[in-house]
Amino acid sequence: TEEASEVITELDENIREIILNEIDKEKIVDIIDELDTDDATDIVSDLPENIAEHVLDNIDREDSEEVKELLKYPEDSAGGIMTSDFAYVLEDATVKDAIDEVRKNADEFEHIYYIYVLKSNDELVGIVSLKKLLINSLDTKITSIMEEDLIYVKPEDDQEEVANIIEKYDLVSVPVVDDHKRMLGRITVDDVVDVIHEEATEDIQKIAGLSEEEEISDSAFHISRIRLPWLLVSLIGEMVSATVLSSFQASIEKIVAAALFIPIVMAMGGSSGQQAAIVMVRGLIKKDIWLSEGFGKILKEFRVAMLNGFICASVLFVTTHFLFKVDWSFSLVLSSSLIIIMTFATIIGATIPVIFKRFGVDPAIATGPIVATTNDIFGLLIYLSLVTLFFVT
Amino acid sequence: TEEASEVITELDENIREIILNEIDKEKIVDIIDELDTDDATDIVSDLPENIAEHVLDNIDREDSEEVKELLKYPEDSAGGIMTSDFAYVLEDATVKDAIDEVRKNADEFEHIYYIYVLKSNDELVGIVSLKKLLINSLDTKITSIMEEDLIYVKPEDDQEEVANIIEKYDLVSVPVVDDHKRMLGRITVDDVVDVIHEEATEDIQKIAGLSEEEEISDSAFHISRIRLPWLLVSLIGEMVSATVLSSFQASIEKIVAAALFIPIVMAMGGSSGQQAAIVMVRGLIKKDIWLSEGFGKILKEFRVAMLNGFICASVLFVTTHFLFKVDWSFSLVLSSSLIIIMTFATIIGATIPVIFKRFGVDPAIATGPIVATTNDIFGLLIYLSLVTLFFVT
Repeated sequence: TEEASEVITELDENIREIILNEIDKEKIVDIIDELDTDDATDIVSDLPENIAEHVLDNIDREDSEEVKELLKYPEDSAGGIMTSDFAYVLEDATVKDAIDEVRKNADEFEHIYYIYVLKSNDELVGIVSLKKLLINSLDTKITSIMEEDLIYVKPEDDQEEVANIIEKYDLVSVPVVDDHKRMLGRITVDDVVDVIHEEATEDIQKIAGLSEEEEISDSAFHISRIRLPWLLVSLIGEMVSATVLSSFQASIEKIVAAALFIPIVMAMGGSSGQQAAIVMVRGLIKKDIWLSEGFGKILKEFRVAMLNGFICASVLFVTTHFLFKVDWSFSLVLSSSLIIIMTFATIIGATIPVIFKRFGVDPAIATGPIVATTNDIFGLLIYLSLVTLFFVT
Repeated sequence: TEEASEVITELDENIREIILNEIDKEKIVDIIDELDTDDATDIVSDLPENIAEHVLDNIDREDSEEVKELLKYPEDSAGGIMTSDFAYVLEDATVKDAIDEVRKNADEFEHIYYIYVLKSNDELVGIVSLKKLLINSLDTKITSIMEEDLIYVKPEDDQEEVANIIEKYDLVSVPVVDDHKRMLGRITVDDVVDVIHEEATEDIQKIAGLSEEEEISDSAFHISRIRLPWLLVSLIGEMVSATVLSSFQASIEKIVAAALFIPIVMAMGGSSGQQAAIVMVRGLIKKDIWLSEGFGKILKEFRVAMLNGFICASVLFVTTHFLFKVDWSFSLVLSSSLIIIMTFATIIGATIPVIFKRFGVDPAIATGPIVATTNDIFGLLIYLSLVTLFFVT
């Protein structure tokens, strides 16, 4: 059963659902009884309500209370990923008392890295590593060797915040306390490793324009539903592009060659905007860029875009004029619009995430079709306006 | 100095370079002397050669030997991220001997989670957690309480592989051994957390078409150089698109309305191809999808694409015919090409990463401009061929 319990926590959600549906309720109780309370909570929260109740009524009484407590916190908060299993001693304890506490819990807790020192009202006052217990004599007062300079999190903190703290301070475990600094639980680094993976996956998923994470075992219908929303946003956005084009229909009729370069201006605006957006979003998420610096960074993006725009435009001028034998004046207008479009697209790509962040919207959403579609529309507008200005009127 | 050492390891590379250039060689020696050998190696490898030599000649002799050993391994291999500081005892030791070993190294090593049990030829035979040392009596033979079912890595293993193992088995530290199972060092979970972040950043960077990671402090010229290669690939690809269009110039001249919908077919093919490519790449990297299953997954992508293609095509038909008053026969051909293009683009997006992986190329590269440009070219080809077939000939 212990092995079954270990395996069940690592499974893909759909497969877990199928397995849990197949097996007997009593077997589920046995499996969940073996788990640490954080993993148990994850699984119970996914069970159908009647089975969840049955499980909570039949597992170890104390665990059941704790799981019910943990179920109150959102799944992606510190409270949602913490376990309420921790080893602790009171302030008047000695090293010997602490070792006894470790011994008492050795079998039950998966990992013990620290002993927490609490006041009688559960207030956290210090932590002691197992290393410290080993190197000090048995009658040492625990308060004399404990670390009092504490790093802790609140249960309502976002799991990404917790991951940042654990990563920044190279911790293996961080205590979770309430507003009165009363100890509620702890979060270990293995849970945080999962969080980091999850958050990276989420960012990538937003770039891909997926509305939630796809599991390999999802049905084609389910996957279709995940991908469709952004495809429809894209479709509607590009209808605006079509409308822009139709307002220049007279120009296109007069200079059909202008239509040939539509893919180039669209793709180049799209790529440079996407690059700027992704770099900005990563910076904002990793806190490398603070919001106040965002606008300074946009200035740098402007210089990058001018530079790359100029280089790409030169290549475009040479190839279109000398290779495709396009008239030099048209090549010049085309290449100049490329510089303007790439610069504009880069600024849009870098600015939209900053604005989103400023108004409390997740900046990663901008990397999806929003920046791409905006840039397509304005790119076409810029290109065709210039062509019309120079060659039609 | 200890604090200076901690800070220096967390800095952005450019800023570190500036600081290390500003300060005195002797100060650098002091700072590096304080670090664990894995962090020291990272910094020494970035120093100019003459300073690196000076540092290696002046830090603690034993550390210097170890850093020189570690410098031999590639930066992103297990050998490159391991530290050669570890606490160990020989097979005939008792719990008391192990505790003495912990006591001896307590100050020097940042983290101790396990004591390694070695044969006299350095062969690793077991590990003992500090918890085990605490709960067993002092005269217990170490071999009777050690874990013999060992998980370890080789120095030449990729750091991503190491991260997968640590994550899968929820470890805080994993030993690194050579081909004769001789203990070389250990990798702790805090280093792996950095690796996971790094790998996620790398994947995203490939999606954005960046040739290396951008640091916030990079100059505009440097950033331009990072982004330019893929922009040029994109530019050349879209010139092929322009050539495709020019071969249909007669059709476009006859039916100028056909040009209006170029942005729609390009963007929709692009988005669905990108979604499929990103999902496939994530699956291949996370090993959720094995290569042999890749082709089965492509079949599922086919069904997803047909479904979404049909829905988007219906929306497109209704809007173009009823809202834009496009002739029903043209709307029908346009919408039908959308289904074909989205299906084709999805298959391309899902297939290219699998083929790359098959031939040992990093599949993540496919998510850059390669899939996008291929889909633009074929999308235009499909759309204009159908338009020509039905309305021009």
